[in-house]
Amino acid sequence: MKKQNLLYLGFIIVMLLAASCSNTETQKKQPAENKTSTAVFAKGEKITNEYFTGSAWLQMLVENDSLYNCPIGNVTFEPGARNNWHVHPGGQILLVTSGKGYHQLKGQPVELIESGDIVKVPPGAMHWHGATPDSELTHLAISTNPQKGIVVWMEKLSDEEYNRIKL
Amino acid sequence: MKKQNLLYLGFIIVMLLAASCSNTETQKKQPAENKTSTAVFAKGEKITNEYFTGSAWLQMLVENDSLYNCPIGNVTFEPGARNNWHVHPGGQILLVTSGKGYHQLKGQPVELIESGDIVKVPPGAMHWHGATPDSELTHLAISTNPQKGIVVWMEKLSDEEYNRIKL
Repeated sequence: MKKQNLLYLGFIIVMLLAASCSNTETQKKQPAENKTSTAVFAKGEKITNEYFTGSAWLQMLVENDSLYNCPIGNVTFEPGARNNWHVHPGGQILLVTSGKGYHQLKGQPVELIESGDIVKVPPGAMHWHGATPDSELTHLAISTNPQKGIVVWMEKLSDEEYNRIKL
Repeated sequence: MKKQNLLYLGFIIVMLLAASCSNTETQKKQPAENKTSTAVFAKGEKITNEYFTGSAWLQMLVENDSLYNCPIGNVTFEPGARNNWHVHPGGQILLVTSGKGYHQLKGQPVELIESGDIVKVPPGAMHWHGATPDSELTHLAISTNPQKGIVVWMEKLSDEEYNRIKL
């Protein structure tokens, strides 16, 4: 290949990379069959890992990457479902979008959370969250400062501890 | 003051600081009169700066700080309202929660956005967004990497340019 052609090819590659970097990325909403009836965002897939008690669903809305540093998941807990105690090394913000649930920071009382509430969980703080026994809970979960780590899972909240909650 | 008392005082201060750092902060939702009828989050105050055309409202859900690095605003545009061209040095993510609107990245076609859509705006990309002529638009706006700068405002999109949009 001639030197001139090689330079031209290089120019094309650089321009394509530049275009892909400055492109906006709009994700259209998920089809209706993947959504709960009144929900704005998709319910996603049932979570199958061992860190949840009861059924919960996750739809990642924004994946983690080093450009935005802002992974966002839409999480739905069926009544009675909750996650294990865990820590977000970089912190977490929960935006509750429907239903009612519980949130507890280690060493503090359980608090009732519901549609419209915002929970700021400091980096390194141990907590768990989930639905109340009688209501589904849906929240957006934003991992803040994900460069510091997203999540470290710990032990389960027992049924005994969960059933003891009176709010 | 005795050295022992001083040490004790120091211990108390350290414990108080540790407790305040690990405290979760839950913001309860705003009262109903501050909300649009079906909205999950408060509509907030009318924006009075010069960078918007038409009426728009802003409720900050999470203020910027160096702990979370994740300012989040709830923005509502009345039909026909939009913001000026602007740049987010650290990028922005829009989560459209109701209505229909437009989003345009400089040099690219206008795109229609609606409830459930997610728009990722790369750091440094020039863009504008707002409602369609016939619909309100509400979105959550997350400033990503706010350490790099939140927003730099630029010129208005003229009525002529806005009215030319056919989508």
